[in-house]
Amino acid sequence: MKFCSNCGESVVLRIPEGDNRERFVCDNCHTIHYQNPNIVAGCIPEWEGRILLCKRAIEPRYGLWTLPAGFMENGETTEQAAMRETHEEAGANVEITSLYGLFSIPHISQVYMLYHGFLVNGAYEAGCESLECRLFNEQDIPWDKLAFPVVRETLQRFFADRKHGKDLPLQRGEIIKHPKRES
Amino acid sequence: MKFCSNCGESVVLRIPEGDNRERFVCDNCHTIHYQNPNIVAGCIPEWEGRILLCKRAIEPRYGLWTLPAGFMENGETTEQAAMRETHEEAGANVEITSLYGLFSIPHISQVYMLYHGFLVNGAYEAGCESLECRLFNEQDIPWDKLAFPVVRETLQRFFADRKHGKDLPLQRGEIIKHPKRES
Ligand SMILES: [Zn+2]
Ligand SMILES: [Zn+2]
Repeated sequence: MKFCSNCGESVVLRIPEGDNRERFVCDNCHTIHYQNPNIVAGCIPEWEGRILLCKRAIEPRYGLWTLPAGFMENGETTEQAAMRETHEEAGANVEITSLYGLFSIPHISQVYMLYHGFLVNGAYEAGCESLECRLFNEQDIPWDKLAFPVVRETLQRFFADRKHGKDLPLQRGEIIKHPKRES
Repeated sequence: MKFCSNCGESVVLRIPEGDNRERFVCDNCHTIHYQNPNIVAGCIPEWEGRILLCKRAIEPRYGLWTLPAGFMENGETTEQAAMRETHEEAGANVEITSLYGLFSIPHISQVYMLYHGFLVNGAYEAGCESLECRLFNEQDIPWDKLAFPVVRETLQRFFADRKHGKDLPLQRGEIIKHPKRES
């Protein structure tokens, strides 16, 4: 951020009075521009024991596999965001059963909220951000071709929890910056 | 948003190519300015069966009671945000036990994440955004002087769930716009 989105003058980075963090401040119109984490909402879509993954048709991580998920939009609920992203990326309607994964990724200021749910009728098809969508059994998950650490972490915990056969717990966690990767 | 925060030129509101929602777009530097929901993180701090509430010293809802909560900051986890806000507003350290309330408020694009936890040593004191902090038994909760519908909803569900005496479930929900109020 270099300019004030309210008046167009230059902003400066400093700690406003009564605050304890640096913010972008406009000395012309006195707006303080707060920057806050984004929610990435998505699903772990299940059908007959298999999990639906999407092969990314966009950067970053073009060609790698991920759970359908994306940035929550203004004016929707977290569940609506998760279902919308699953429909956009995987052409699938999901009946949500529970919130399964809640992961903070502080170094990129994202919070992942991944809901477990079942496909409706088992139908799906690749959306325009996916090269391909496919249902995987646990033993066929492409572990070395997953797009993001949060997807690996979620799927590992999910398959372990599902073996217990009861209600899935909520899994909370933090994804730490990988030394050799951006996120 | 009227001006581009990257180059200072005027922005226009339109649907970018490949998108399906209106965004603020800069035709000078071609930046698309996305706007996304904010997370409000907080706690339901418990001590010897009572719940800690804060009487607001700031607008909106000056003088009304709320759970300690506030906007999550970049670079932290949701749990850290909840504990930080509880410390700032109520001078209290909390040991988090679970995520209890997850509420979307789509008309103001906020997502509340309220963790249940226990006070450490029972210590607390009003922070500078609170006129007063106080522990309330269920029958003493000031139901007609609560600051926000999401606080009422959370406390109602919490006391009902706590009566069952088992692990608290995760409560998810949506707060609908009140016809006579802003939020
Ligand atoms: Zn300004
Ligand atoms: Zn620009």
